[in-house]
Amino acid sequence: MPPTITAFDRSPDGGKGLARDTRVRWALEEVGRPYEVRLVSFQAMKEPAHLALHPFGQIPTYEEGDLALFETGSIVLHIAERHAGLLPDDANARARAISWMFAAVNTVEPPILELVTARILESDKPWTKERLPLVMDRVRDRLKQLAACLGDADWLDGAFSAGDLMMVSVLLRLRASGVLDEYPSLAAYVARGEARPAYKRAFEAQRAVNTR
Amino acid sequence: MPPTITAFDRSPDGGKGLARDTRVRWALEEVGRPYEVRLVSFQAMKEPAHLALHPFGQIPTYEEGDLALFETGSIVLHIAERHAGLLPDDANARARAISWMFAAVNTVEPPILELVTARILESDKPWTKERLPLVMDRVRDRLKQLAACLGDADWLDGAFSAGDLMMVSVLLRLRASGVLDEYPSLAAYVARGEARPAYKRAFEAQRAVNTR
Repeated sequence: MPPTITAFDRSPDGGKGLARDTRVRWALEEVGRPYEVRLVSFQAMKEPAHLALHPFGQIPTYEEGDLALFETGSIVLHIAERHAGLLPDDANARARAISWMFAAVNTVEPPILELVTARILESDKPWTKERLPLVMDRVRDRLKQLAACLGDADWLDGAFSAGDLMMVSVLLRLRASGVLDEYPSLAAYVARGEARPAYKRAFEAQRAVNTR
Repeated sequence: MPPTITAFDRSPDGGKGLARDTRVRWALEEVGRPYEVRLVSFQAMKEPAHLALHPFGQIPTYEEGDLALFETGSIVLHIAERHAGLLPDDANARARAISWMFAAVNTVEPPILELVTARILESDKPWTKERLPLVMDRVRDRLKQLAACLGDADWLDGAFSAGDLMMVSVLLRLRASGVLDEYPSLAAYVARGEARPAYKRAFEAQRAVNTR
């Protein structure tokens, strides 16, 4: 039985691939694992049936036999641990790839989420115009450090891993802001991620849902 | 050889236990693993020797033989995977505990970090007084969902796990704001975490550094 993930019935981004189901679809495509998708409306996400799967009323979730998981990072890690292709065999390299997964969601994504919040939830506030450059500078601090670490390598630590999958996914949220172009090596890194056949399949699958 | 972690030479919180080395100390104490600590100054954290260990110039790091890790979540997971006491034996329960680790750092902590940023980095801004209640409401959204999920259980999913260790640590950042008291079950949950002997040892160890 293939696993079942949940995704937005209609993603707020209209199919740009920024909803977090894309990250899980991408992981499943990288390891060649077929999956099924159950679409959930905004309303249904806040109802008991979905809350039983996801305490914070979000997508994606992951169901496989009697296992039910929530939280994108842990779903991607679960897939990566059980199938070849997303984590190195060497134990130390494997632990470092997992460090990059956590760095993506706990160090790089928080200032990016703050930017998204400022732009969307606080767009009508009188302070937002003056505040946005401060938030953007906090994003730049992280991008500068990340670019220094990446150097001229293709991926963060050796071969492509679940750490890169998560980091590229997090950085994709910045595409529309233009700030990635200030860091050409990061823009190229994201483009390498997007060029992967598995990413393309994941992207097209979510786009098909949102443009149907 | 015991592992070596890094911690602030002088923590910005003066020893309240909110610096992230406390999370790693707590994990090591839970599994009964002795460790050594190398203290790092703010200045040294931004220098090449430390950046080679931690790309974002932060603490903690973790060195054990030829393994060097950064990012608290991955260090705690690494410890939890290699020693009994922080992850269930059952594979499904283990995957769910890891979901809670990611939920702590990627769903619950981001609005809390936003609150900390508003209070510290934007304390002198003209908008902060009016904006803080909005940020606090986003924190409350998460706390309400978390309290609903915890119910009257002691821990998030069965026995105490690395998921609880991370969640309690994230919630501790809210202690000073008083907002935890609006959710008595969460305040009690945090207090249960703090009452664990391993937490107490970790807390005292970091306090000793910061009050020496």
